[in-house]
Order: sequence, then C-alpha cells, then structure tokens
Amino acid sequence: MKLNCDLGESFGTWTMGNDEAVMPLIDMANVACGFHASDPDIMVRTVRLAMSYGVAIGAHPAYADLQGFGRRSIPHTAEQIHALIWYQVGALDGICQAVGQRVAYVKPHGALNNDMMKDPAILEAVLKAVHDYSPDLPLMIPTTRLHGEHRALAAQHQVPLWLEAFADRAYDNEGQLVSRRQPGAVHHDTDTIVAQARSFAEQGGVRSVEGQWLDLPADSLCVHGDNPESVAAVKAIREALGKAA
Amino acid sequence: MKLNCDLGESFGTWTMGNDEAVMPLIDMANVACGFHASDPDIMVRTVRLAMSYGVAIGAHPAYADLQGFGRRSIPHTAEQIHALIWYQVGALDGICQAVGQRVAYVKPHGALNNDMMKDPAILEAVLKAVHDYSPDLPLMIPTTRLHGEHRALAAQHQVPLWLEAFADRAYDNEGQLVSRRQPGAVHHDTDTIVAQARSFAEQGGVRSVEGQWLDLPADSLCVHGDNPESVAAVKAIREALGKAA
Amino acid sequence: MKLNCDLGESFGTWTMGNDEAVMPLIDMANVACGFHASDPDIMVRTVRLAMSYGVAIGAHPAYADLQGFGRRSIPHTAEQIHALIWYQVGALDGICQAVGQRVAYVKPHGALNNDMMKDPAILEAVLKAVHDYSPDLPLMIPTTRLHGEHRALAAQHQVPLWLEAFADRAYDNEGQLVSRRQPGAVHHDTDTIVAQARSFAEQGGVRSVEGQWLDLPADSLCVHGDNPESVAAVKAIREALGKAA
Amino acid sequence: MKLNCDLGESFGTWTMGNDEAVMPLIDMANVACGFHASDPDIMVRTVRLAMSYGVAIGAHPAYADLQGFGRRSIPHTAEQIHALIWYQVGALDGICQAVGQRVAYVKPHGALNNDMMKDPAILEAVLKAVHDYSPDLPLMIPTTRLHGEHRALAAQHQVPLWLEAFADRAYDNEGQLVSRRQPGAVHHDTDTIVAQARSFAEQGGVRSVEGQWLDLPADSLCVHGDNPESVAAVKAIREALGKAA
Repeated sequence: MKLNCDLGESFGTWTMGNDEAVMPLIDMANVACGFHASDPDIMVRTVRLAMSYGVAIGAHPAYADLQGFGRRSIPHTAEQIHALIWYQVGALDGICQAVGQRVAYVKPHGALNNDMMKDPAILEAVLKAVHDYSPDLPLMIPTTRLHGEHRALAAQHQVPLWLEAFADRAYDNEGQLVSRRQPGAVHHDTDTIVAQARSFAEQGGVRSVEGQWLDLPADSLCVHGDNPESVAAVKAIREALGKAA
Repeated sequence: MKLNCDLGESFGTWTMGNDEAVMPLIDMANVACGFHASDPDIMVRTVRLAMSYGVAIGAHPAYADLQGFGRRSIPHTAEQIHALIWYQVGALDGICQAVGQRVAYVKPHGALNNDMMKDPAILEAVLKAVHDYSPDLPLMIPTTRLHGEHRALAAQHQVPLWLEAFADRAYDNEGQLVSRRQPGAVHHDTDTIVAQARSFAEQGGVRSVEGQWLDLPADSLCVHGDNPESVAAVKAIREALGKAA
Repeated sequence: MKLNCDLGESFGTWTMGNDEAVMPLIDMANVACGFHASDPDIMVRTVRLAMSYGVAIGAHPAYADLQGFGRRSIPHTAEQIHALIWYQVGALDGICQAVGQRVAYVKPHGALNNDMMKDPAILEAVLKAVHDYSPDLPLMIPTTRLHGEHRALAAQHQVPLWLEAFADRAYDNEGQLVSRRQPGAVHHDTDTIVAQARSFAEQGGVRSVEGQWLDLPADSLCVHGDNPESVAAVKAIREALGKAA
Repeated sequence: MKLNCDLGESFGTWTMGNDEAVMPLIDMANVACGFHASDPDIMVRTVRLAMSYGVAIGAHPAYADLQGFGRRSIPHTAEQIHALIWYQVGALDGICQAVGQRVAYVKPHGALNNDMMKDPAILEAVLKAVHDYSPDLPLMIPTTRLHGEHRALAAQHQVPLWLEAFADRAYDNEGQLVSRRQPGAVHHDTDTIVAQARSFAEQGGVRSVEGQWLDLPADSLCVHGDNPESVAAVKAIREALGKAA
C-alpha cells in the first residue's frame, strides 16, 4: 500500500503545507502544476525534494483558478480538458526531465477530480488526455463502489488505473467521502485513522459511517502534511502498515 | 534559408495575427507558451495547424506577463530562468507529444530575448536551461556582430545554435536592430524587404543603415503574419529565395 | 430609449471591438473592469473616450476569468459576489473620479449576468452589492417576462432598476433570449433589427420567435460595435428612433 | 507618532501575516489591493477588521505581480502608474465605501515604492495620481535625507505628505535603509527596536549604522505582524511611546 500526498502547493511568497516534513514519509507526491497552486520555481524545488527521497512524482493538474485553489467547478469541453492536462503534465514533466526524472502518474485536483467522478464524460476526457500524453502513464482516482466500472472505462482507454483511499475521511454507503460540511466527515483521532488505513490495506475496504461494509480496493492511501498532527498520523500509518521508518 | 514566424499569440477570445494565412508559407513556427500570450486551447490548435503544413514547432517562452505581452523586462535569477523555460517548453512539448509531434527548438520571446542578448549571464542561463531540457535541442537567437562569441558560448553549453535575421528591420553598425522608435527602423516596401532577405541568404550579411557592410550569418529569417501586407511580403521572400510555392 | 454597448473589452496588446466607431452612437457605455477583459490602461482610455462624447459610464463587472471572457459560470457565495462587485465598480469609479466623472450604473457581464437571471439569490446578492456601494446607483438587467418580480425585488433593495432589451436577438415565449446555439438566435438583417428596436421603443415589447406577443418594457437597447455591420445597424437604429445623428 | 503596518496580504487560500494579532496594536493599516497580494474577499475582511479597531485604512498599491509579491521592478510609463494607482485605490475605496469607511491615505508597495524613491519622475507620477484621485488624500513615503525635496515636490502637486520610518531597520549615512542582503540590516533585538522607535519619536532622527546622526522626521513608524516576535516588538514600541495599551 503506497502513501500519496498533495504537495508543492505554495505559490510565490505564500507557503502551504510542510513538504519537507512529509516528503520522507511518502511514496508518491502529487505535485501542483501552476494552475491551482505553485509556480515554476516551486515546482523545481518540489521535484528536487521528491527526487532526494526517491518519491515518485505525479502531476496534479487542475482548473486554472489560483484564487479558488482549483476547488471551484468551471465548465470545460472535453477538448479543453485534454489541453489543460497536456499543458500541466507537460510543464511538470519538462521540469522533471531537466533534472533527471519523469512524471510517473496523473491525479486530477480539486473540482476537476470531483467533476470527473460525477460525470463519466469528464472522466473519459481525462482518460483520453492521459493516454494520448503517454500510453503507459497511470491515472489515479478515488476508489468508490463504482471502481469496477471505472476500471472497465480505463481499460477501454488503455490507461493503467490506480485507486486511492483516504484513511482520515468517513465514507458513506455509496463509497463516497462524506462531505466536509457534515459532522464526523474528517477523522482527527490517530487510532481511528490508523485503523482505517489497516482496514484498506488488509481487508480491502472500510465500514461506512452508517455501519455498512464496503469493498473498496485501493492501491494507495492519500495522506496529508498540512500540520504536525497530520504528519504524526502519517508516521503512525507507516508503522502500522509495516513500512520502513 | 528557413523562414520562421511568431505564432499562436491569441489569448482566450482575443485574436492576434493571421496564423492560417502565414502557416503554409513558413518552415518554423515559434509558438507562444501561455506566459506572454496563448492558452492551452490555442496551443493545441496552433500545434495542429503547424503539423498540417509540416512546419517545425519551436517553443517561444517568455516572462510571465500577459498584460505586457512579455515585452517588459522583469528581474529573474538564473534559477528562475531555468524554471520558466523548463515549464513553458515542457507545456508545449506535452501538447506536441499528445498529438504526435515534438518541440524542435527554442526561441525566447520579447524582453527575455532582449535581456539575453544584452547580458551574457542571462544567455548562459537560457543555454543551460535548453541543454538540461534536452541535449539536442537547438536555441535560436538573433544574429549580431557577436555571433562568434555566441556560437562559442553555445558550444560550451553543448547547445546547437541557430541564428535568425530580419528582412524587414534596419540594422545599425553593431549588427543590432535599429529601435522601432527610430524612423526607418522597419521596412514596409516589399522590394526592400526582398532585397534584404536575398542579401542574408546569398551574401551572408546586410548593409547597415549607416551604409556599412555587416557579415551576419543567418540560418533563418523571421517573418510576420500580422496583416495582409506582411503575408504578401512573406510570399515575395519565398519566391525570391526559390522556395516552393 | 437609450442605447447601451459593451465596450473597453480589449486587454493588453489584444484589441476587441471598435470602440472609437461606436462610442459616438451610444448613450451608455458598459465598461469592462479588468476581470473578464480590460486592464487599468485600457479603462482610462475607455473612460476618456466615453467622456469625450458625453456617454454615461456603467461598470460591467464579471467573474474573474480572462481566458473565458467571464462567460463561464464559477460558483460564488453571496459575500464573494458583493466583494467582486465592490472591487470592480470601485476600480472603475476610481478611474472615473480621477478624470472628472463617476460611474452612472452597473450592468453585470456574461456568466454573472446569466446566473443572476436564473437564481434569485444571486440577483439579491447583486442588488445588495449595488445598494451598499451607493444608494442611488441603478442596476441594469435584461427585460424578461419576470420584469415585474425583478422590479419588486429591486425596490425592496432600494435599487433603481433599468431594463435592457436586444434588437438583434430573437426572444422565446418566456421572454428569454434564444440560445446562440439555436438557428435564428441572432438577427443579421438590418431591417429586422430596426423593426425590433422600434417594437421595443414604440410598443413596449416584441413578438417571440414562436409568434407570441411579449410585453417587455425596456429603458435601453443593447447594441454592438464588433464589426462594420453592427456599427451600421446602430446608425440605422438611431435614425429609426429619431435620435440625433 | 502613528504606527502603520502592511496587512491584508493573504491570497485565496494562502495566509500571510497575523492580521488579527497586530490590528489592535496599530493606527494605520496599509491594505493590499489585489495586485501584489489579496483578493476582493480578503480585502473586505481586512477592511472590516480595521474598522472594528478604528484603524485608518491606507491603500497599498503595487505593480501587478502576484508571483513576485510586487517586489520586482516592472517598467511603467507615468500614465500606466496613474492608471494602476487609480484602479487599486478605487477598488479598495469601493469596498470601504460599501461597508461605511473611506481610504485615508496611499502608500505604494514594494518595487513601486523603491522605484519612486529612486526616480523623481516616478514619484511625480505617483503624486499626480494621488492628487487626481482626491485632492485631500495623503501619500506616505519613507523618510530619507531628501525629505525636504520630497516635501517640496509633494507641495507642488498639492498632496499632503506623510513620512514613515522603520524601528527595526538599520539606516545608512544617506538615510536609506541598509539592504536586507547586508548583515545587521534588520534589528531583531526588542531593546534596539524600541530605542530606535523612541529616537524617531523623541529626537526626530536616528543614528546611522556608520554612527552618523541623521535628522529624519517621521509621522509614522512601520511595524510588522509577521510572527509572534514582531507582534511583541509592536507592543513594546506602544508602551515605550506611551500609547494606550
């Protein structure tokens, strides 16, 4: 079970997250590409930091919306989604290539991620964009009860699909994350977070907030480096999953 | 003698230039990368248009300055110049790669181009950036009386160097373009433009506005597609240089 | 019957519309405020041009989306709509004040305009923003079959309401503009445009594309200066309405 | 002796500074206007926060450069400086007006501030812009040995001039701040900071880093709220200057 984290989300003089603290603890870094966060300078620093810990670099493309941090849904045609993914993955890959690395996978960010999980036409646009960029490039999407359909769609587009789960978020009976606006949506207790991580890693699923068991296969857990508590939780997950310290 | 043209400089709903008219007439398209002009949608369209005519695609990176069209000098460290070139060349190359093409060369735009021709430290930053992006990628810079020094510097950085000249701009005794603010800086007469194009192509240089002969070797002439007159001039140059219609 | 026109929609080096040609022909200029188009330099030029013809200056605020020209709906809270209207109206008013003029009214642009006509909560946010900016400042919105409800809502917020109609766009039975994606949505024939202008001016309504009469009171007609044809149509409307040449 | 502080410099989801902690301790808030930092939402929050403590609101206009935080000099004509000041002061003033307040003064930010102190033509452009915006609006600039010339120039443009000094920065013999790149440029010791504040308040000047006395009249001290240490220093300055706790 790999650990992935959204990283490189500073912008100009503004800092976000604690990349130095969390990078040594993860396997995969989802690196912002300048549309919802980051800029070329920060992308170079983030890529070098990931390389120094042998962390795989994923492109984290988003709608162009710095002020809204890519969290606002903005209407796009399929062709526009292709273009924004090629542009952003290419920009990050250009930086990677210049310093001796390559983009290893793609994980859409924020509203683009949400929209793709709600609208199969957008998911298809993302799949086509990733395949056309490079036939071997994997796409990482959230695991839900529709993971079978998603795998089939990805196979049809010849895109390797990776599924990610969340150790610190409650799931509903549909296998969707409970909205952050609901109470109990986010786990803050380390024991709960670790137990959910083990549930995904060892049992291939999780119990929903309503108490129903959900088979939710996952290749990776999304973790967070925003604050000391979340970094401590990542350490606890590593230990519980028997990953090297 | 190749003909190159700055293209793909529309942005959103705003149109600039007449790319459809000039693309069939040129050999090399310098494609804006979103920092001084263009956006991912326009870049895809521009790359496809270039491919449809077999035109080589060059990255045309710039300082991030849409409002100023990349024409205002903005202070950058060498590391920042590396980052902005890798980002922009990578973004365009990502789009190229997705539609079955690759970036063939790099030509800096506007103030970045001017700054690099004035300050050898900036030229070195550009050379290092281009080399690190890809060891075989050529850089295109204006030909001046310092072309020998520039070739030496490029060789030192192992970057293939292409020199470009202008058929429609007056040169001073230093082999620099006369400033557009001076009278006579820009040739509007087609015969004069064609004669200057032939001078570069057949005699390897041009006579300065003060009347002095300048040896200015050039691999390519920069032409323009802004209006019907400039497109007509490109056609006249093609004919005069014996290039296929 | 006043004539209003969206103007000042160039950006940096990109030109849009033919402001010089249309400004002498209109009564009210809806001036872009830098979020969907324009920049401070262009706003100053546009305000001075309007003043030179005694044209009233309206703020034309929009969602922040230069690439999409403010035509893409982006989710905003009511508070965010207040803030973006105050910012943009204030920016234009600051320029007006510095050159001896003031903003005379507000007309939301593009997707913000569409969203406000679809969602009463957004219209209320716009009304509150306009009222709080200045108690006497009018808001201009499209006239529809709901004009009575809109007048009541505006009165409740103590905002003077101006209704605008389109001479060159077909209306459906709901008094909505037929979508541009439908055939016949836009009138190109000058006689048709003039007849529709007279219908609004003299009969207080228009016949829908399905043939039904619609009472649609209007204080102003929205005209266009994009090309020579639209400028010619404005001249014909002026003449037909008996406005000074 | 008034205390002023640069505030409201967050952007979107990125936070900068500790505005809540420092606002109760100052007299004047220099509020970012969206060009180097901030956005309409943050500006509304900042203005309301200032109003809740009775703090005067100053516009803090800058070159348009979010990534560079307005710290990079970008060439502008005098007309462009007028336009960017009118736009930004107007935008902030629009927000102020909507919530029952007005902009009380203008203090240019970053590179615009530096450029204006180096080039009298730029200072004149700023003065003209401020005067044309509103004849009674004061401009705040750093106090230097040229304060007499600056006062004369401001009087000529009929602009009230306020001079600001720094308690935590070393001065050279020209009355300029020692560059941050030099050792000893920034005082970190609270006693030193307080002593320098008292020197400006009680003796109308400061001793330079080379030991020379400088007559530097100041109307206000610029303080900082970036971190707990700087907030503690502001409290110590308040106490030393006998300002209400």
